[in-house]
Amino acid sequence: MKSCPKTKAGYINVHLVPHSHDDVGWLKTVDQYYYGDNNKIQLGAVQYTLDSVVEELKKSPDRRFIYVESAFFWRWWTNQDAEMQEIVTRLVNNGQLEFILGGWVMIMNDEACSHYNSIIDQMTLGLRFLNETFGECARPKVAWQIDPFGHSREQASLFAQMGFDGLFFGRLDYQDKEFRKQNKDMEMIWSASPNNLGNASWLFTGALYNGYNPPDGYCFDIFCEDDPINDDPKLSGYNLVEKVNNFINIAQDWAEPYDTGHVLMTMGSDFQYMAAHTWYKNLDKLIKYVNRKQITNSSRVNLLYSTPSCYLQEVNKSKRPLSVKKDDFFPYASDPHAFWTGYFSSRPTLKYFVQKANNFLQVCKQLAVGAFNGHPPQKIVDSVRDFSEPVGIAQHHDAVSGTAKQHVTDDYSLRLTVGMKSCESVVDKAFRKLQHASLNEVQAESNEFPRSFSNGLSTTYEFCQLLNISVCTASETMSDFVVSVYNPLARDLQNAYIRIPVSSPLWDVQGQSGLISSQIVNIPQPVLGIPGRRSKALYELVFSVDSLPGLSLSNFQIRKNTTEHVHSLKIKSQLKAIKKGGRVIHSSASNLAAANLREDFMIKNSNGLAIVFDSITGLLKSVIKGSVEVPVEQNFYFYLGMAGDNSKFEKRASGAYIFRPNTTGSQPSPITERVFSYQVYKGSHVTEVHQVFTEWISQVIRLYDKTDLVEFEWMIGPVPVEDNYGKEIITRYSTDIPTKGVFFTDANGRQLKHENVSGNYYPVNSRMVISSNEDLSQDQLSLVVLNDRAQGGTSMNDGEIELMLHRRLLFDDAFGVGEPLNETAYGTGLVARGKHWLLLAGEGTGVPISKHREAAQNIFMDKIMGFADVSLLQHNEYSFMRNAVSTRNPDLSARNTMVSGLVQVLPTNVHLLTLEPVSPTQFLLRLEHFYEKREDPVNSEPVTISLEALKQALPSVKSIMETTLGGNQWIEDLKRFEWIPRTVQENANEHVSVVQGAIVLHPMEIKTFLVNT
Amino acid sequence: MKSCPKTKAGYINVHLVPHSHDDVGWLKTVDQYYYGDNNKIQLGAVQYTLDSVVEELKKSPDRRFIYVESAFFWRWWTNQDAEMQEIVTRLVNNGQLEFILGGWVMIMNDEACSHYNSIIDQMTLGLRFLNETFGECARPKVAWQIDPFGHSREQASLFAQMGFDGLFFGRLDYQDKEFRKQNKDMEMIWSASPNNLGNASWLFTGALYNGYNPPDGYCFDIFCEDDPINDDPKLSGYNLVEKVNNFINIAQDWAEPYDTGHVLMTMGSDFQYMAAHTWYKNLDKLIKYVNRKQITNSSRVNLLYSTPSCYLQEVNKSKRPLSVKKDDFFPYASDPHAFWTGYFSSRPTLKYFVQKANNFLQVCKQLAVGAFNGHPPQKIVDSVRDFSEPVGIAQHHDAVSGTAKQHVTDDYSLRLTVGMKSCESVVDKAFRKLQHASLNEVQAESNEFPRSFSNGLSTTYEFCQLLNISVCTASETMSDFVVSVYNPLARDLQNAYIRIPVSSPLWDVQGQSGLISSQIVNIPQPVLGIPGRRSKALYELVFSVDSLPGLSLSNFQIRKNTTEHVHSLKIKSQLKAIKKGGRVIHSSASNLAAANLREDFMIKNSNGLAIVFDSITGLLKSVIKGSVEVPVEQNFYFYLGMAGDNSKFEKRASGAYIFRPNTTGSQPSPITERVFSYQVYKGSHVTEVHQVFTEWISQVIRLYDKTDLVEFEWMIGPVPVEDNYGKEIITRYSTDIPTKGVFFTDANGRQLKHENVSGNYYPVNSRMVISSNEDLSQDQLSLVVLNDRAQGGTSMNDGEIELMLHRRLLFDDAFGVGEPLNETAYGTGLVARGKHWLLLAGEGTGVPISKHREAAQNIFMDKIMGFADVSLLQHNEYSFMRNAVSTRNPDLSARNTMVSGLVQVLPTNVHLLTLEPVSPTQFLLRLEHFYEKREDPVNSEPVTISLEALKQALPSVKSIMETTLGGNQWIEDLKRFEWIPRTVQENANEHVSVVQGAIVLHPMEIKTFLVNT
Repeated sequence: MKSCPKTKAGYINVHLVPHSHDDVGWLKTVDQYYYGDNNKIQLGAVQYTLDSVVEELKKSPDRRFIYVESAFFWRWWTNQDAEMQEIVTRLVNNGQLEFILGGWVMIMNDEACSHYNSIIDQMTLGLRFLNETFGECARPKVAWQIDPFGHSREQASLFAQMGFDGLFFGRLDYQDKEFRKQNKDMEMIWSASPNNLGNASWLFTGALYNGYNPPDGYCFDIFCEDDPINDDPKLSGYNLVEKVNNFINIAQDWAEPYDTGHVLMTMGSDFQYMAAHTWYKNLDKLIKYVNRKQITNSSRVNLLYSTPSCYLQEVNKSKRPLSVKKDDFFPYASDPHAFWTGYFSSRPTLKYFVQKANNFLQVCKQLAVGAFNGHPPQKIVDSVRDFSEPVGIAQHHDAVSGTAKQHVTDDYSLRLTVGMKSCESVVDKAFRKLQHASLNEVQAESNEFPRSFSNGLSTTYEFCQLLNISVCTASETMSDFVVSVYNPLARDLQNAYIRIPVSSPLWDVQGQSGLISSQIVNIPQPVLGIPGRRSKALYELVFSVDSLPGLSLSNFQIRKNTTEHVHSLKIKSQLKAIKKGGRVIHSSASNLAAANLREDFMIKNSNGLAIVFDSITGLLKSVIKGSVEVPVEQNFYFYLGMAGDNSKFEKRASGAYIFRPNTTGSQPSPITERVFSYQVYKGSHVTEVHQVFTEWISQVIRLYDKTDLVEFEWMIGPVPVEDNYGKEIITRYSTDIPTKGVFFTDANGRQLKHENVSGNYYPVNSRMVISSNEDLSQDQLSLVVLNDRAQGGTSMNDGEIELMLHRRLLFDDAFGVGEPLNETAYGTGLVARGKHWLLLAGEGTGVPISKHREAAQNIFMDKIMGFADVSLLQHNEYSFMRNAVSTRNPDLSARNTMVSGLVQVLPTNVHLLTLEPVSPTQFLLRLEHFYEKREDPVNSEPVTISLEALKQALPSVKSIMETTLGGNQWIEDLKRFEWIPRTVQENANEHVSVVQGAIVLHPMEIKTFLVNT
Repeated sequence: MKSCPKTKAGYINVHLVPHSHDDVGWLKTVDQYYYGDNNKIQLGAVQYTLDSVVEELKKSPDRRFIYVESAFFWRWWTNQDAEMQEIVTRLVNNGQLEFILGGWVMIMNDEACSHYNSIIDQMTLGLRFLNETFGECARPKVAWQIDPFGHSREQASLFAQMGFDGLFFGRLDYQDKEFRKQNKDMEMIWSASPNNLGNASWLFTGALYNGYNPPDGYCFDIFCEDDPINDDPKLSGYNLVEKVNNFINIAQDWAEPYDTGHVLMTMGSDFQYMAAHTWYKNLDKLIKYVNRKQITNSSRVNLLYSTPSCYLQEVNKSKRPLSVKKDDFFPYASDPHAFWTGYFSSRPTLKYFVQKANNFLQVCKQLAVGAFNGHPPQKIVDSVRDFSEPVGIAQHHDAVSGTAKQHVTDDYSLRLTVGMKSCESVVDKAFRKLQHASLNEVQAESNEFPRSFSNGLSTTYEFCQLLNISVCTASETMSDFVVSVYNPLARDLQNAYIRIPVSSPLWDVQGQSGLISSQIVNIPQPVLGIPGRRSKALYELVFSVDSLPGLSLSNFQIRKNTTEHVHSLKIKSQLKAIKKGGRVIHSSASNLAAANLREDFMIKNSNGLAIVFDSITGLLKSVIKGSVEVPVEQNFYFYLGMAGDNSKFEKRASGAYIFRPNTTGSQPSPITERVFSYQVYKGSHVTEVHQVFTEWISQVIRLYDKTDLVEFEWMIGPVPVEDNYGKEIITRYSTDIPTKGVFFTDANGRQLKHENVSGNYYPVNSRMVISSNEDLSQDQLSLVVLNDRAQGGTSMNDGEIELMLHRRLLFDDAFGVGEPLNETAYGTGLVARGKHWLLLAGEGTGVPISKHREAAQNIFMDKIMGFADVSLLQHNEYSFMRNAVSTRNPDLSARNTMVSGLVQVLPTNVHLLTLEPVSPTQFLLRLEHFYEKREDPVNSEPVTISLEALKQALPSVKSIMETTLGGNQWIEDLKRFEWIPRTVQENANEHVSVVQGAIVLHPMEIKTFLVNT
């Protein structure tokens, strides 16, 4: 380890750590924070922080600084001249400037609402940037999650796999913190994957004494209100004696719960060190005068400039046995009335966009490698990066969390949109290359960084990113077009359903082997009325594809059918409506048969899945799978958000961060006891029940013909607030499954953890499970709800799954954002539309684990569709009708070996997590065993992949080397600190990773490879 | 002139002047501003400004900075190591760091409430500090009064005499400014002493375009809310094009009214440049990109780092003819409802303290030179400086002006008190030396800078600084003591009256020639009731001294007379009271003779001066001098202060800065139509009428036996505000003198100027005059009121003099101080006590000029009294009774030649303005011709003083050299810019200053000499 400062044995060594916490967007946008725009909102200009810190570090080799936010550092670094870059490199190499964490996002991603795929990506982006810029000396050794509002075990596990020696954070439940202080348990071993990865996932974890702030009275930033250290006795403010003595007392207090003779003191806070001089001038004095007391007054306190990694080294040397932590730090409460669980669901449309952006980014990355045969031009690499960056930034703990100001949220969306355009051009080129499009044409296009945000890049394909609200300009306006469907899973997708918004009802669909049966479904009227929705689409064309091969592109031609007779499909719809309050809004109610009103009705599919509705209420009543029927009532409810001025704990309002219903502990109110109206559309591919609950809540419950999932597409908004009450809308699935107070949520979309505390909210990134047996590997009755974005969820009563869908609130909760969470668009409250999927496993139907693992993967690695005029195919003299395209087409196999071949190499329990270009001659590959131990009799076993076969399946491989998870260190160089657990732990798993000529993947293991081409 | 930046002919040269306006106390105390304490109130820490500016100047030789506030710079400089001092010296020498103004106070003293004596002193303190530290290169050439609230012609005259080339200011009447902008008359020649000094008093004067702020949108301080210049097109905030183009437009707009091809742009504001980097980084970009447009877009705007002196040099070169200004910039209005005339009277007790502090400081300085024979020990020099500094600081435009926050005002008072202690120790030593006290004893005492403010220095003498409220612990508690009276005037004071508070009525007073007749006067009961007044004194002992010799010390022994018969004085009091509302508060009303009630009564003295009272109202009715009787009614009135929230101009409140009665233009209301009670005390030395107007206003009208002045000692407070109305209290002297709307006020206590605008307030530092003839040199009927502190005054109606005495207000006026001017002490509203003196000159009684000139001087150079136990004299084996002390005593003459001799050398129209130690071997001497031309047949003539006689009269003179007024440049080196007036001026006076072997002083001339001993 490079030069750490000397400490003094027998003393309390106070490691003063100068730092600045620079949010990558919060009250201001990331660029505003970097440059110092919009200072009216908040004084913050990171450019000056980096400028001035470097100046101050030059003045004394003792001084240190840690920097975290690569996103900012990158902006700064690229604007420095060679001389300054050299100076900075020297400061990095001698340890004065130390990078911590190193994720791209900012300092630190959100731990509740981020998908593990995105966490890994954003960390990789930052870690590799540092590695490429400064080399090994700059490799962060410490993770630094000082601000996120609760901490996920999975995050810790990922950090361990990235090679971090330790993790520090600032926020944990106030009672837990008090308890840990008293028990000297502020530092611990986090066993972050106790059932799977063993001590490979152990991570030293330290809770900081005072968040990430300095002790009271010792904030020396230019913006601070504490008095500087005044050592000039001629002046009236002379306070040296008092400042020194007081600090010695504080140091002793802080050191006590850590009990190693070392304590880390965070000397900084939000956007500090913009004028670093004020800090260092005063810290120099503090160190000088406090240490002087060692001689004159026998003080046993020793101050030193230090860093978290230097501190950690000393703690490690102390060999103090540590307790072992095995669960999450969720939910986080900062006081008895401030549970930070609102942000799990805040800003549902942003959360969805972030999830979809990751989906598209993964496709973009894969194709940048695969379609270019492992040798993407630099422009392609850059374009991928141009999207990687905003997707990374979106993981920030004030971005995807929904806790930024509205204008900042808009900026995140804009960045995602602009970045997506870059990747659309990549995907466009890749799609065309895969279709024999002219190589010259593809390469000749410019792909420069857009000069301004408003410039899009024109593509041949249109990617219709608004399909979630049934909008697609291409399919709405063209009468003969091709839809090219890419499946980014490294396995074939069976019985895939394609939905395309269209403006007229009669279409022919042609696939590889001729005409394909299709169906037209009405787009529900509430959807047509979404404010701001600009679309001619009134219908969705639905068809089924038997199989979308893994990592492949499939073409379908969609042509308007002008001859009515050729049209073989019919819209079969059975329309029902229920009067409520004497008012019927849907005219379709007119053809109701009175006799039907009292009968439940059932919808079935060919997989033996059926759903039953109550005709009276129009609500879902039960779900039948095979011989098992489980009563499942689904309805929407609302909490009234607490109003308050936050003047004291009891007056805390529900807001962007905080979820606080105004009648604590009581049940939420149902939106309605029975739906306002419903319509049933039956068809050969899908049967849909269109429910209207109220003017602002509607839902489609959808049963595709060949599926085990019931799809719920909810639409909520504008949430009415004319009554001056903020509202938080949930959906609840109520069953009679005896869950004994236990429910399961995913951890950042990956491992499942279980919580015994009902009545509290937890983050749900991909799914929530309730079951009649706590051991999910057993055959049992269980219900899974999968979601399409991060949401907060709970199981308030046995047998229930509750997920929060939308929040509209009228009060700020006083944790800084300074705005009520009252999203509007087009002059009214925001409308959100999204999906849940329900999966039932009854006793005797087998363990459902693999089904929902696969289903969750299908959702976050969804197929991507490109739309183009049919002339695309004709231009390229490609006869669509004769030779339907797939990447498996023999004609393409030479160029696309990787894409098709990899699918055959990877076993069913291995997920292709990452295929990402690093340069024109390098890419990153991550393979993930996506099952836990003992979950599944087959899939939970370790698997072995032949290295040679892998090489053959990947494009142009010259060499392949394993790295740590962040892609910034060879796995063989990984050497982490060892820690002594206070209690004996189960035998840790020591995996042999690479056996001779093969890769072995154990449950939940991710292996990362840098591949040279 | 040292390296000024190159300009471009044919271009608009924009002189960017980086600067920080660092108030020496306002919202925070001076030390708090220097160090950065109390940042909760305001972020300000000058230590960092100086630190960071030096760092930034080092980075590029083009960068410049001006610094103004010597008081801060001195604090900083003394804490720097040799290396840093050398760097700074280099930056000063190459012109990058330029000192401007250079006064000690801060940047700039108040121009309304400061006495010219104090202005000269504070400027000298700063200018000489710079000269001693850096030499000639650091000599400020430009005066910089950017913030004071109106500008005095006398201030400009003093600047001219200090050798400044020009003056810039930021605040002038908004209409005047608009007019000047339109007429391209923003820069002018201020003929600052048109009747006396001619063009020796000419001063280039420039009004700044935007106060002292940068153009909107171009504030680049770390605390500013304008966006930085973003030249990175990759970022969303990229604004370079807009910033550059907009700036070019602004530069053209700004340059227009100046019309020389040059414009000065103030790039800074209050307490900026604490992190200078942010400013310079952006200014560098601005200069680079704006100038680049010269090539690409043929822009004619040229930016350069510059300084006011470099700018002024270019303006001078342009030879543009300028208009000539001959009057004041008072009063200052910033909008139609914001007349900045309240501060003329705000905080009356502070204003008095500042005046008295100057009085004591002058005595201290004189004695430090005179009593130590021109060779004061360094400790004495330092002690004088320890008082000079706070007295200088007190002249700050937020100090004596009364516009600082209360806690800051308290700090000014504390500083004056502590500084006064230093000078008390000097005066104490001097008094004792003059009395043959043991030299060893005097020198052995420590005189270190007090470690903390609470430490006083013990002295033998007590100086009783609270005599103004009739408190003196020494005289109240001792029964046999000496009072030593020093007269700091360089002329004998005839018929001086001494007043000493005592706790019992029977005393003997012994002077040089035996027992002196004395009188006892009751201290008025309202005075005894002043909250917080801790005193046993119930009486004042009054006696008369025929002559107090100039610059001399006179001793008087005061001894309690225990034998009643020896007591030759009687208290003769005639008691009257007037019933009002059926209530009599003074029991003395009981012995009223009913017959007297209807008769006016008159009081006379032996100088032929008489005053007549109306028995019914108890008010002054007329004043008689010789054969002339003028009706003079005097009464107290109040304005109700405007209440307001300052949300718009019309809602402006009356406050610390602003005077705004709530019924604009209307007459103020009288406190009462007739006094509540009055008592008359007649005696051989003084007759006093003690008036009680109301529970919170009382007054003593006092007629000493041998005087031409009627003394009014008013006492006001606590001003009642229980009715929720703020009140502003005035006194008004109403006569029938036909003044035709004209009245005269002094200018900083010196020249008289006249204003034709009645109905407005003007600052009055020493006196106000109304007259039947505008030409004051003529024999005429005139009335003079002299005051003891700065006050605002006006003559609302012909024949009236109105002066504002006290203000208690309940609303802030929103110009920054953020507090209503609601002074309290001891839990209730502040009580203020002070004096006016009325002088009447009737036709045939001769021109009164010399009388009120002398009277004003007597007031601001009042005698100083020291009280000591009689043992002081006995200890020193000094037989008081045999040999009464005066500095003229032959025994002392050898040591005190200067003190006694100077009085004989100086003619009656020459004032010894300054006698001040500079070092143990140097002192500063200032001689002032204190008459204007044509004022007085004798005194208005030029006078010649023999240099040889002067040398003889001064102590230990080796050489004597004339300097400019600030004492920082030899008079022979003075070379100022010449300017071309737009209109022909009267022939300017060119004085020959020093004729062969003699000094010639012309009217209003001040000559400054540096004397080596």
